[in-house]
Amino acid sequence: MDTNEKAIQMHRQWNGKLETISKTPVKSREDLAIAYTPGVAAPCRIIADNKDEAYNYTMKANTVAVVSDGSAVLGLGNIGPYAAMPVMEGKCVLFKEFGNVNAVPICLDTQDTEEIIAAVKNIAPAFGGINLEDISAPRCFEIEERLKEMLDIPVFHDDQHGTAIVVLAGIINAMKVTGKDKETAKVVVNGAGSAGVAITRLLLTYGFTNVTMCDRLGIIGKDYPDLNWMQKKMTEVTNLTNQTGTLADALKGADIFVGVSAPNIVTPEMVASMNHDSILFAMANPTPEIMPDVAKAAGARVVGTGRSDFPNQVNNVVAFPGIFKGALEGRATQITEEMKLAAALAIAGLVSDEELCDDFIMPEAFDPRVAEVVSQAVKSHIK
Amino acid sequence: MDTNEKAIQMHRQWNGKLETISKTPVKSREDLAIAYTPGVAAPCRIIADNKDEAYNYTMKANTVAVVSDGSAVLGLGNIGPYAAMPVMEGKCVLFKEFGNVNAVPICLDTQDTEEIIAAVKNIAPAFGGINLEDISAPRCFEIEERLKEMLDIPVFHDDQHGTAIVVLAGIINAMKVTGKDKETAKVVVNGAGSAGVAITRLLLTYGFTNVTMCDRLGIIGKDYPDLNWMQKKMTEVTNLTNQTGTLADALKGADIFVGVSAPNIVTPEMVASMNHDSILFAMANPTPEIMPDVAKAAGARVVGTGRSDFPNQVNNVVAFPGIFKGALEGRATQITEEMKLAAALAIAGLVSDEELCDDFIMPEAFDPRVAEVVSQAVKSHIK
Repeated sequence: MDTNEKAIQMHRQWNGKLETISKTPVKSREDLAIAYTPGVAAPCRIIADNKDEAYNYTMKANTVAVVSDGSAVLGLGNIGPYAAMPVMEGKCVLFKEFGNVNAVPICLDTQDTEEIIAAVKNIAPAFGGINLEDISAPRCFEIEERLKEMLDIPVFHDDQHGTAIVVLAGIINAMKVTGKDKETAKVVVNGAGSAGVAITRLLLTYGFTNVTMCDRLGIIGKDYPDLNWMQKKMTEVTNLTNQTGTLADALKGADIFVGVSAPNIVTPEMVASMNHDSILFAMANPTPEIMPDVAKAAGARVVGTGRSDFPNQVNNVVAFPGIFKGALEGRATQITEEMKLAAALAIAGLVSDEELCDDFIMPEAFDPRVAEVVSQAVKSHIK
Repeated sequence: MDTNEKAIQMHRQWNGKLETISKTPVKSREDLAIAYTPGVAAPCRIIADNKDEAYNYTMKANTVAVVSDGSAVLGLGNIGPYAAMPVMEGKCVLFKEFGNVNAVPICLDTQDTEEIIAAVKNIAPAFGGINLEDISAPRCFEIEERLKEMLDIPVFHDDQHGTAIVVLAGIINAMKVTGKDKETAKVVVNGAGSAGVAITRLLLTYGFTNVTMCDRLGIIGKDYPDLNWMQKKMTEVTNLTNQTGTLADALKGADIFVGVSAPNIVTPEMVASMNHDSILFAMANPTPEIMPDVAKAAGARVVGTGRSDFPNQVNNVVAFPGIFKGALEGRATQITEEMKLAAALAIAGLVSDEELCDDFIMPEAFDPRVAEVVSQAVKSHIK
């Protein structure tokens, strides 16, 4: 059986992947009196007096909601909330397995921005954090920003920030390998959706000064047609020379390429036109923007992809479980820019100087240290 | 330590009671490829083609949402969504322990009818059923009715129907003991909130013909002041002689009293005024409408309460886990009146003729047969 067949069989066998269980036995009348009536009234009264006590007496302490409207799921597109469920359940499984964080999939039967915001705001009391997932741009930006303002728990769109954190971690290590630095490196980010925008923003926050975004029509600048409000905003901080042209034009002399776009759109000629010791993160799934062997043959030095069967896998699973683990343990009310930078540095720091090389810039997904160091990094930035 | 102290300690020790876990291991790259990307795309595609397949490939198959707005929690009243959480988590624990049904607590940060309906409608895709809980009357009636119309999964307000089913089960057995019958027995239901209304409706559906409801001002009839729309509707099918007066007036000559009201409001004199072999369900918590020993001394034959320390406990836990277990296994789209009656008969039927007596009319909460026979009863009425 191939992976698809195994996945179909496993999901069908179990009716999904996630299960809820009790932490405490309910096998006797006394158990029942403690977990339910009449005893349960005692913690209820404590929380009624002070709602912060919810963190002590309820699952809010260590539970996130994984919320999607199914509008931008994996490479599958707008498949809706029912079909998005296997992904959201999978995400919940990873939260628990990698970060020991409980997670509940919430797939919303609406793609209306206002309805999504209202639903998430209204379900928030049970949860210590909201992980937004697979919501299409540009709605994802507004939904996240407005929920962050409304709620006193962290709201984190993983397609944006999880991806950005892991890419930054990889770039930090790739720059160590290649001797490049953030003040002078020229970066091209291809794909101006949620991930591309968030990667660009985090790179700028980290201290990169020369970042150019591209999308289907080439270099994004002030005259690029039909930009959404977030892409317009990005033109104020990227491509400061207002260059125009194609992706190929952008890549000439570039040090770093980050692709969150489409298969096979980077040619060997484009790679050859980049600066020496070029770094490429070709993260289109399942087929990258350029295959690693092709990129290397054309002169690339460090190549990462989203795939586990190539070196340097850029995998959000090294970020989000630890991010929320730290945020929940420290009762953070927001995931700040400082936390994201600290998380990226912590992930990068797990690759020792001895291990670090062109083909080993990222810790393994199953490295048991990852969630712990990321959570510590996040906690150390809670005010 | 008393029960309250034990409950506080337990809830604090565990940070709540509920946990999410994976049904499938994620310990290797291959596990990850099957539970998450890339393999997870295969079940997603199947569901995208046919949303009914969500029942085969996602937790929707065996998961309910336990939804409350915290407006009418236990005897605590309107304590809000944060303080309601220990009860909803407890309910989720009972779903799993008694019915092997997964359950997720959803405590809503709104008490607006329209917002509650919108939130529940929008979170429905992940769930195979909605258990509404501790929502105050009369909003609970409208919320349930409208959600039942909108959704293609069962919506069940347990405070109404779970209570009604268990009370009916108890009455069925109490009538066997006393030789009373539904066509001639006079029933008085005291407390015209969600439970009182639902009990009355189910008794009428079962075939009782003479039911009178009372509330704080006495007998409910066409001239009772400030009735809500549901109570008004009930005046068309109860108290058909349009009797007026107090609870004491209503109880004169009555065969059955059902109290879902307030402590100590039934006096020995009232019991003495009832018909011979009277049946009392005094379910105010924690202090019943009349204590069982007092009622019996005044002439009552069968007395049930909500408490586990007296005989004949009326406990919803013998109903809701099996109701949803059956509904989910049979993929019911509604919990119908036929299913409720069948569930009540199934619960009553678990008490054998040999066991049946004044002080044993209900199966034990921990009787392992309960959820199974209730679920079979529900399944046998799915069309």
